[in-house]
Amino acid sequence: MAYNIPSVDKLIDKFTSLPSIGRKSAQRIAFHLLSLSENDVKDFADSIIVAKQKAKYCKCCQTLTDTDVCSICSDPARDKSLICVVESPQDVMAFERTKEYNGTYHVLHGLLSPIDGITPDSLKIKELLYRVTNEDVKEVIMATNPTVDGEATAIYISKLLKPFEIKVTRLAYGIPVGASVEYSDEVTLIRAFDGRQELD
Amino acid sequence: MAYNIPSVDKLIDKFTSLPSIGRKSAQRIAFHLLSLSENDVKDFADSIIVAKQKAKYCKCCQTLTDTDVCSICSDPARDKSLICVVESPQDVMAFERTKEYNGTYHVLHGLLSPIDGITPDSLKIKELLYRVTNEDVKEVIMATNPTVDGEATAIYISKLLKPFEIKVTRLAYGIPVGASVEYSDEVTLIRAFDGRQELD
Repeated sequence: MAYNIPSVDKLIDKFTSLPSIGRKSAQRIAFHLLSLSENDVKDFADSIIVAKQKAKYCKCCQTLTDTDVCSICSDPARDKSLICVVESPQDVMAFERTKEYNGTYHVLHGLLSPIDGITPDSLKIKELLYRVTNEDVKEVIMATNPTVDGEATAIYISKLLKPFEIKVTRLAYGIPVGASVEYSDEVTLIRAFDGRQELD
Repeated sequence: MAYNIPSVDKLIDKFTSLPSIGRKSAQRIAFHLLSLSENDVKDFADSIIVAKQKAKYCKCCQTLTDTDVCSICSDPARDKSLICVVESPQDVMAFERTKEYNGTYHVLHGLLSPIDGITPDSLKIKELLYRVTNEDVKEVIMATNPTVDGEATAIYISKLLKPFEIKVTRLAYGIPVGASVEYSDEVTLIRAFDGRQELD
């Protein structure tokens, strides 16, 4: 229900339009913001504007950054011959949290989905081919989600990479660590069987 | 974990500071905002600034409004002799949704809570006394929450209103409609017993 206060109603509508915020939360947030000092509110609004102005895609790997080349691509300690292809900057962070991977990334900014009109041209695939052509790349790891769109995108890109004769790999499928066999779905169990490895 | 992009990290921090938004949601929202057009982002930020600039307290009932006197207080059809005292503008909306109440409101903007340093002076109690003194008020309905602070506030204000010799009432306690006796807590059941009414 509207509050019949145009400016407040608009504020609530704006927050309701954000992902993972319902109408009730949007109202709570709006009243919280209105209870802050004028300075704090300005600071909040500015942080949105500034982030939008500064954040851009890394010239090399296309992840979000506020410099021309991101901190990963410009780090001389990272192995530039290894490219991990992911859907979004959030996925880059997920891998970075493991603190294990020392190669670089390539962010597609989406997955192929002809039904939603997302064709290869909408993704950062050209940029990946440019890197493979011009840099000394030894392996491309397809790390898109194990969903229909993620699979299709991985297969599509791996076919594009065939002529370059570099190693193209895919993340392993299997039972998540800590999960139980009993409650795993059939497809995951079949993949876990197929991908079984010899114990030392 | 920070993204090492100062502007984006600040944006995520700002959203994490809002009520009912966790870090994961804040990240999702931040990336959503960054994916919008520059204009849409500006519009979003502006809605915050504008709401803060325009929204003020109604001169009469202290609820949020962007006019001097809110739409309820300035409606000649509302019964000005009836004041429903609530904690917040959200509570006003809750009663308005019932479409049953035709009196006016008075928003305290908080509840007495000496532990948190919220004393009578921090609330809009003076403004309520002013209305009771200067307007022809017949009944004040204490509609604060049935919590310790809500009770204490209702009792405190009802004592202040004693000298005015007007009717001071309190919302009925009882079992919520649709709830079950089995799962109601003891205090609610005792209150429901005490407040029992004769069936016609």
